[in-house]
Amino acid sequence: MSKILVLNAGSSSVKFSVFNWDDLALWAAGIVELNGSSGASRMRITWPPEQSREEDLPFRGYQESVVAAFANLEGFGCWRSPGEVRVVAHRLIHGGETLRKPVVIDQQVKHIVRQFTPLAPLHIPAGLEALAAAEQAFPDGLQTGMFDTAFFADIPPAAFLYPVPYEWYERWGVRRFGYHGTSHAYAMERAAEMLGRSAAELRMITCHLGQGSSATAILGGKAVTNTMGFTPLEGFMMGTRSGTIDPGLITYVQRRAGLSADQVDEILHRKSGLLGVSGVSGDFRQVEESAASGNGRAQLALEMHAYRVRAMLGSLAVTMGGVDVLVFTGGIGENAARLRQDVCRGLECLGLRLDATANSRAVPDCDIAEKDSPGRILLVKSREDLLLAREGKSLAMQHRHKATASP
Amino acid sequence: MSKILVLNAGSSSVKFSVFNWDDLALWAAGIVELNGSSGASRMRITWPPEQSREEDLPFRGYQESVVAAFANLEGFGCWRSPGEVRVVAHRLIHGGETLRKPVVIDQQVKHIVRQFTPLAPLHIPAGLEALAAAEQAFPDGLQTGMFDTAFFADIPPAAFLYPVPYEWYERWGVRRFGYHGTSHAYAMERAAEMLGRSAAELRMITCHLGQGSSATAILGGKAVTNTMGFTPLEGFMMGTRSGTIDPGLITYVQRRAGLSADQVDEILHRKSGLLGVSGVSGDFRQVEESAASGNGRAQLALEMHAYRVRAMLGSLAVTMGGVDVLVFTGGIGENAARLRQDVCRGLECLGLRLDATANSRAVPDCDIAEKDSPGRILLVKSREDLLLAREGKSLAMQHRHKATASP
Repeated sequence: MSKILVLNAGSSSVKFSVFNWDDLALWAAGIVELNGSSGASRMRITWPPEQSREEDLPFRGYQESVVAAFANLEGFGCWRSPGEVRVVAHRLIHGGETLRKPVVIDQQVKHIVRQFTPLAPLHIPAGLEALAAAEQAFPDGLQTGMFDTAFFADIPPAAFLYPVPYEWYERWGVRRFGYHGTSHAYAMERAAEMLGRSAAELRMITCHLGQGSSATAILGGKAVTNTMGFTPLEGFMMGTRSGTIDPGLITYVQRRAGLSADQVDEILHRKSGLLGVSGVSGDFRQVEESAASGNGRAQLALEMHAYRVRAMLGSLAVTMGGVDVLVFTGGIGENAARLRQDVCRGLECLGLRLDATANSRAVPDCDIAEKDSPGRILLVKSREDLLLAREGKSLAMQHRHKATASP
Repeated sequence: MSKILVLNAGSSSVKFSVFNWDDLALWAAGIVELNGSSGASRMRITWPPEQSREEDLPFRGYQESVVAAFANLEGFGCWRSPGEVRVVAHRLIHGGETLRKPVVIDQQVKHIVRQFTPLAPLHIPAGLEALAAAEQAFPDGLQTGMFDTAFFADIPPAAFLYPVPYEWYERWGVRRFGYHGTSHAYAMERAAEMLGRSAAELRMITCHLGQGSSATAILGGKAVTNTMGFTPLEGFMMGTRSGTIDPGLITYVQRRAGLSADQVDEILHRKSGLLGVSGVSGDFRQVEESAASGNGRAQLALEMHAYRVRAMLGSLAVTMGGVDVLVFTGGIGENAARLRQDVCRGLECLGLRLDATANSRAVPDCDIAEKDSPGRILLVKSREDLLLAREGKSLAMQHRHKATASP
């Protein structure tokens, strides 16, 4: 029975999902954790829950460790032979201005993606390593890619340009791209479905809160801007990323502490955000626990986080002249009821009235706005993998059609 | 007859106003333009209009040129002798965390102000030069200072901290200060007065648009945040300043172009904003003219400018849970009717409905919201000088009282 393997590669882990080709039913899902520094990797199958299991593997480099994990998945019965995997659908972070739709991955696509490594230095090499592993393990499978930036391909110039010398755009392509597009696109589709409405008639904000976080303003089914921009460092305060800060602060700190561009970039990516303020952790739950046990700086980090999310949602709302639907998604967005409550305090003026009881009991997918709230507030479980599988299958069908049609 | 001289020093000009001590009536006002590169300085008296005049002077350094201008003002009858100037009230950009109220300037105050030079390298040295000129010309006058940052002295930690390592705050005082406080404070007072309401019962946004621009959220008469932060580079897109941009963009450009922190800071201060995008000018009117004559990039710069102002006003509004009054002030805010219209397009969802006709005909001070708009939109002529004069006089009265009371 043919399968679709969906891969979502991060800097130290690869999430995978295995779907039936025919009905896109989820067959298995889990994560491969790659801990190069400790020389260990671990594969966890988390779905179906009754068959969850863990397997420890020696770390042999990113690509080889992923290949070894694939062999294990075959051993667990996810497919009988590599030939059953017809499509490997990859989430890729960056497609630049040219890769605006899901594509079959070829050398040129890899070349374009690789060019953007400086903008997402944690994610892009990982994506390419996972791709190499999939090519090695499934030589007959079709490798397809869906780009996080593609959902933002049509945002207007007034939103995508920065107020910097125009030459920076012309020479180096300095512009807002936007990220997490696959998650935002899925959340938009699912939210419209839940409301029984067409996305084309809605002003929507999708708010993806996870280890990385961003929000998108979506007007009539089209993204008009995203809080992440040229790089995934912009926008919300995140686990270890600063998000948006005063540009003058960066050059000040460089001069004051004698830091190079690389050093300050490293600090803004890995030592800032929740971790930087709390001093405790970049993990939202750990910061919540620390705050609950009386740590004042952890509490401050949570307040800042909610404050900054709320403020940026306000800016996205007026960009569209208002908002009909706010969607929370992503690991933190789906689980942190208190955060959602803190964020929504102040958004009543936009017609978004959270039902505190519904929010505290919420399990996605559901509506957590008050019954008579003019705008809806939804909770959507992030299922990028499903969108990736769908798009991968669709490309494979077209590809077969083309192959048959060509002389 | 005693006078109060108010000085507002910029990097290449000093605005001055002369008030009667007794009734704070404005006696004369104008600007001293200091063009060091061309070796010329020019004094223009613009008020009273019927006595407006210009005087060209050789440029002899900032301080000496300002002293020369004072001599000219005496010649024009602004005061009969230097002894008549009882108070020189200075607008100073930065008072840090300690100078939270208007003060009589002494050595310690100068020392504190000087420390902040790296945060406002254009403004602080200018302010100190103008101060030195005033001390030289009016040895018997009381020098008082009002700090642009002081209006923001009580903003809460969740608003003033950045999501960067907490040590940066502890070691280097990296925090949001906020700027243009004197203008925002005046606009708040005047707006409340115009509405016949107390600022204490209002949620207000004051939007100061000039060569430098910022907006302040004011809740119950207290500033809760300002779009400028640690430095006056943050926030709105300005004449030649970028305002807020992706932090990752800065380090990328540094690496890509091999720019030092100083070089990129210089570009973000002087070659960005309206100038950077339009390629034409950092002067709003010139960009407007260029756009009107068909320059696409000038048009784009105007769109970006309005888009970014609107977005940030949205974020300030939700920070207060809504907004009752939006106040436009500053040279551009007072004069650019089209900009106000563009900015307000989208703010209707916050209850701010601009009356297009009233807006196009507006002369400050006036209300330009629709009659039945839930929120008011006001136009207030920036009169920082009046606030500075009032505060300076008040300090002089206390000072005399203290001097009399001391043994």
